[in-house]
Amino acid sequence: MSLSVTILGSSSAIPTSKRNLTAHLLNHDERFFLIDCGEGTQMQLQRFRTKYLRINHIFISHLHGDHIFGLFGLLSTFSMMGRKNTLHIYSPGRLKDLLNSHFAFMGETLNYQIEYHEVDAKMPEVIYDDKKITVTTIPLRHRIPCTGYCFREHPKLLNIKKECIEKYQLGVKDIVDIKQGADFVLENGIVIPNKELTTEPVPPKSYAFCSDTKALQRIVPYIANVDLLYHETTFLNEDAKLAKATYHTTTGQAAQLALEANVGKLVIGHLSSRYKDDNRFIKEVQDIFPNAIMAEDGMKIDI
Amino acid sequence: MSLSVTILGSSSAIPTSKRNLTAHLLNHDERFFLIDCGEGTQMQLQRFRTKYLRINHIFISHLHGDHIFGLFGLLSTFSMMGRKNTLHIYSPGRLKDLLNSHFAFMGETLNYQIEYHEVDAKMPEVIYDDKKITVTTIPLRHRIPCTGYCFREHPKLLNIKKECIEKYQLGVKDIVDIKQGADFVLENGIVIPNKELTTEPVPPKSYAFCSDTKALQRIVPYIANVDLLYHETTFLNEDAKLAKATYHTTTGQAAQLALEANVGKLVIGHLSSRYKDDNRFIKEVQDIFPNAIMAEDGMKIDI
Repeated sequence: MSLSVTILGSSSAIPTSKRNLTAHLLNHDERFFLIDCGEGTQMQLQRFRTKYLRINHIFISHLHGDHIFGLFGLLSTFSMMGRKNTLHIYSPGRLKDLLNSHFAFMGETLNYQIEYHEVDAKMPEVIYDDKKITVTTIPLRHRIPCTGYCFREHPKLLNIKKECIEKYQLGVKDIVDIKQGADFVLENGIVIPNKELTTEPVPPKSYAFCSDTKALQRIVPYIANVDLLYHETTFLNEDAKLAKATYHTTTGQAAQLALEANVGKLVIGHLSSRYKDDNRFIKEVQDIFPNAIMAEDGMKIDI
Repeated sequence: MSLSVTILGSSSAIPTSKRNLTAHLLNHDERFFLIDCGEGTQMQLQRFRTKYLRINHIFISHLHGDHIFGLFGLLSTFSMMGRKNTLHIYSPGRLKDLLNSHFAFMGETLNYQIEYHEVDAKMPEVIYDDKKITVTTIPLRHRIPCTGYCFREHPKLLNIKKECIEKYQLGVKDIVDIKQGADFVLENGIVIPNKELTTEPVPPKSYAFCSDTKALQRIVPYIANVDLLYHETTFLNEDAKLAKATYHTTTGQAAQLALEANVGKLVIGHLSSRYKDDNRFIKEVQDIFPNAIMAEDGMKIDI
């Protein structure tokens, strides 16, 4: 199974000529999940040649314009392109009211259904679960209700050693049991331990998205051990006071969280456009957490 | 005086990887007028290095998403960048209601005032006039109220010949009168005709913007003799029926209008993304009106 993230926008509230507003596209085995949808997201989805018409789930972190103003255009485009599939949108706050009153004003009827899932931004909850992946909210703290999202693949079954199937003449039910961890008992009562019959599967992959929040120690267990953590670092360390006042995170704080949560890799974004040199962000982060990269629009990260 | 147009977006309702949604920036002697504001306009304004913070007047053709969804972000950015100047927005329809309810929902208070000017899309009217330029609406016909805009510089004063000032010892009042067309009378009663004292000024420049409309013969007088006409050509000639059904214009119809209105140059845009080869548009237009070009995002046209 494959999991990758394409960064569609990496600016903070004001876009720059190089950085669009926040949006990430998660591709899990050719199923596409959009996370946030700042203005211009539909153009970025086209520009980076994504299969955006196959997005069936959109996860919104919070209802600030730089994270949602691309919804109006994207949802219209879906309709003009003949979409029929139901679109699921997950968000804290009254996004349903905003979009419904918007479409009513515009006199626009979409060709497809939208199913809204209002999420509770105060406690973590599983909001999506299928055979392959689970999405859990990460309660964040911003000026308005805000939530991150953690995508974790289900643990995979053990791999059975091919030679054992023949050697012990394993049937279908035996194989199913062994792949789930059972030992195998021969007719003479001898037990073959599971370890001799199987190899470890590829570890499940995971991705956590944390945008627009005060640095929160309490989220460490929710993002623990994820392969890839996206965390905003709107401000450099020198502006810690400003970060606190505006409910944002500094480079040092994001790096410290990544360290404590033992994540595999950290990608930073939502960089304030006030600084002339973006490279200062990555330097400050890598001082604490070396395996960190800076988000760039169009960057695709294979997990 | 200088007049130029920068094309910020040239797609029709669905953007492409090369064409953003409709918006034009008019620069008249370093005063900036924005015409339409499709999604992504603020990014295009930055990308093409325009002085967008100096826009004080926005002219909206009609309230379809591909012409206005960039307003939410642009107006917010103006506020975040510390704008204080009043912003004037001209539009048919209830744009004021849409934006007011939007900002109320978002809990956003802008740092500056917006003055809304609702225009009548049924008859031409002068909606803006200052010392240098006049803006007149062009009543269009689309599925909802829609108007084009014609920008015409005021006729300039005659240029007085420097040598005449000395020769006839002209005073300030004499000069003012002569520049406005008066003859000069010597003390002995001899009349020096104005033509001997002056040269013709540079002709006033003009630009007309016609977006999203059925082809309308009746607008010919309103756009007569403009130096530059922008006219949508959503469809090729082969799709004339579709153009009619959706209240749009074909290549041939736009070219014919340019010919009849005796315009200097025609720029076409709002090209439907259904055709694989954009060059077909310009070929069909130039068959009728040779001095035509195809809008490209980032193109700056000096008038």
